This record gives sequence, structure tokens and C-alpha cells, in this order.
Amino acid sequence: MALVSRNKDINISEILRRVPIFRNCGDAFFTKFGSASHVEEHDKGKTLFLSGDAATRFYLIGEGWVKLYRETAEGAQAIIDILTNGQMFGETALFHEDLCPFSAETVEPTKLISLPLSLLKQEINTNNTLAVAMLTSMARYRRYQDQEIEHRSLQNASQRIGCFLLRLTDQYDLKPCSITLPYDKTLLASRLGMQPETFSRALSKLKDATGIRVKGSTIEIDDIDRLSEFSCSACSSDFPCKDITAGTVC
Amino acid sequence: MALVSRNKDINISEILRRVPIFRNCGDAFFTKFGSASHVEEHDKGKTLFLSGDAATRFYLIGEGWVKLYRETAEGAQAIIDILTNGQMFGETALFHEDLCPFSAETVEPTKLISLPLSLLKQEINTNNTLAVAMLTSMARYRRYQDQEIEHRSLQNASQRIGCFLLRLTDQYDLKPCSITLPYDKTLLASRLGMQPETFSRALSKLKDATGIRVKGSTIEIDDIDRLSEFSCSACSSDFPCKDITAGTVC
Repeated sequence: MALVSRNKDINISEILRRVPIFRNCGDAFFTKFGSASHVEEHDKGKTLFLSGDAATRFYLIGEGWVKLYRETAEGAQAIIDILTNGQMFGETALFHEDLCPFSAETVEPTKLISLPLSLLKQEINTNNTLAVAMLTSMARYRRYQDQEIEHRSLQNASQRIGCFLLRLTDQYDLKPCSITLPYDKTLLASRLGMQPETFSRALSKLKDATGIRVKGSTIEIDDIDRLSEFSCSACSSDFPCKDITAGTVC
Repeated sequence: MALVSRNKDINISEILRRVPIFRNCGDAFFTKFGSASHVEEHDKGKTLFLSGDAATRFYLIGEGWVKLYRETAEGAQAIIDILTNGQMFGETALFHEDLCPFSAETVEPTKLISLPLSLLKQEINTNNTLAVAMLTSMARYRRYQDQEIEHRSLQNASQRIGCFLLRLTDQYDLKPCSITLPYDKTLLASRLGMQPETFSRALSKLKDATGIRVKGSTIEIDDIDRLSEFSCSACSSDFPCKDITAGTVC
């Protein structure tokens, strides 16, 4: 669900209170952060920062999609992640000498909450509860990456797509749902470590095996259990994968 | 180089002072930790803990090799990492409700320094400098994992082996060196996300391309620059990859 749907309703402090790592921060924190933050709207294809740039802001996605990537000297692009509503990025620059460790670009029209990195740094250095909450969040992301590496070895292409979709659902509410993905299939294939033609074939197999329906860039899922049975049989985590999915704003 | 080579010389407090994340801890910390820690010697094949076990200790490798892995319900094993001298593992259980997030097993005869997790927890909750140092270490590991995922897409098998070797060298001292790997080629192949037969073919190509010599399980590298030119051309980081290699004890 979009965090930022209509500009006039936006109360940044209130949104920040729902960010898991900020759960135990005090009122002063939210007031200070709220007043130093703003909403940005961008079209598709906007470069937000490049790897190696001096970092001054970090971001919470209100609505839309952002890709994180790096490029080799030869120009090949590696997609690190594709993020959507409620996910945060850019804050790890604090731990890389205030330099962006990857590049970020919008891949759909996107609304972002832009937050000041300097305030976060001050707060982490003085508020140990926040530092420990960030450690917990980073440890979960580490498990997420372990799983990502594992899946490249153990899951087939259809299962990898199924897993990617499951992570975008509410795993604790198994009602039928629909997910709108970015239009760019090459990008999604790259994120999942496969060729575009493999992605298309694997998506067809996934439809046949789990009954999901694909309408343009919207995926309708009637039976999340069926999707998880298919995808999670070749994974070392149980469904719902609670050890890795606590980073986003609910 | 082994941290623990002869039992009679071991001063655990002194070794802990060389662990990067503990750099700014005070004397009281090292005294307390030193007296609550001990050295363990294990043969190859010793299970140290299993995924989901209640965690009470974490470990620093004095000498040897340890594999971290997870298993699917169907029994397939995914190798998360293979660690050696000076590397630490098991401490992230603190951020997973004190449960081990993966299994660990020695893959060669190994000497470990076993450290108390409860003391680390106490210290992190009260010593903000340590919490921030751990955040920095975790952020570097995150980059390391980003790079691992990237390499599965962009590097060929020979380049992946070359990169694995480079990470085991001292990247700031380009003198000829030799590295002794675990004997188990199936394990190394699995760690690098390839089949054993692919590993053997790719290692032959790597020898021809870079002049490294393989003698049993020892790899002799005369020209680190030549190895890095070959391996790092398909990587988004520059050599030496300083943004990801600061976690081990020097």
C-alpha cells in the first residue's frame, strides 16, 4: 500500500513513527526529523544518486519503485535490489565514510520522503536503542541476502519469481491480493539473476503451477499458500519467512 | 596467518584487542571477555551449532576452516560462507532472538576462540561505540554480499575463483604468497555457486590465464596484480576492494 498517496495528507512525523527501526525513538526525534524532511516526486528514470557520491540524504519510498545498482568499469550493470512502498535506502552510506555504496534510480513515477543523513548519524551516535534497532535490521537484511545467494543455487527460475512475489505480499494475511510490478521485464529478470527470455518462460510455468494471473504488469494471487508451497520447497526458511521480513513500514 | 598456533602462547585478551570492531573498547572489556573465553580444538567435521539452536557463544577462528550453511526441508545444503583465520561468526544470533541463523561445521582441523554471547549483548546495549563499530562491520558485510550476488551474474567461473583467492590475500601487500584451501573441492565449488566439474575446468583456465600454481590444496600466487586484472575486470569494485574487507583480525 502506498504510504504517500495524496500530498495534502502527508504528515512525515507520523509516517516515521511507523518505521520499525525508529519504534523506540522519542517525540523530540520525530519532530526534529519531520521538520528536516520533505516529499519528492520523480518521473521514471530519475537518478537519485550515483555510487561514490557524497551522501547527505536517505530515503523512504512513499509510492513507486526504485532500483539500486552498481556498474563495472566495462559498463555492465548489476541490480542490487528493486524496492517499493515502505522500504528505506541510502542510510548505509553512514558506514561507508558518507559515500553512497551503490547508485539509485526510479523505475516508475515515485514519491519519496527525503531524510537528512546528518541527523540520523547524530541520533545513532547518541541513542543506543536506535543503534541496536539498526543492527537488528541489518542482521535481517544479511539473512535476506544469504537467502538470495542460496536461491541462486537451489531454486529454479519459476520458484525465484514466486519467492520475489511472496516477499511483496503480506505473509501474515493470506487473502487474495494483487501486486503491480515495474513494467520493465529486463530489469526484473536482472534482479532475479536470469535472462529476460528465461524470465518469460519461468513466469508461464509459475502461472500454470500456482494459478496466479498476469494482467499487464499486475499479478493477481488468489492462493498464497499454493504459491508458497511451490516456491518455498527449495528454500531453507519456513513460510512466512519472518526472520528476514521486518524492515518495511506496515 | 594463524592467530592461535601454539597453545602455550595464547593470550585471548591480546588477540581480542586486534579485532576491528573491538578497537575502541576499554581495558575492563578485554579483561572481562578474556576470562570468560577459551580455546577449543576440533577435528574436521565437527558440528559447532545448528540453525535454530539457542545461541550462547560466538567464535573467532584461530586456525582452520569453518563452513556456515543452511539446509532445505528436502535436505539440500546451501553454503553461506567458508571462513578462516581471524574471521568471526555466530555473533548475529543476538539479532535473531538468540537463535543461530545458520549451521556451522569445521571443514579442517580447527582452533577456535569461544566467546560469551551474553557479555557481547550487555556490551552492545551499553557501549554505543561498539554498537556503531558493529554497524560499520555489518554494512561492509552487506557490500560483500551485494558483490557476491553481482558476481553470480557478471563474472565467469574462473573470475569467481580468482576473486575468492584475492580475498584471502593481503591486498595491500602485493608480494608473492601461498594460500592453503580446504581439501574439499565440492565444498569450494558449492561456496562459489558452481558444479564441481565446472570448478575444476575453471581452475585450469585460471592457472593458464594468471600463472597461479596449484599444488594439492595449496595455491601459489606470484603476481597478485595479474590475478586481479583477470578477476576484477567484471566487478563493480576497484582492487583492492577496501569497502568490503575490514572485518578480519590482522
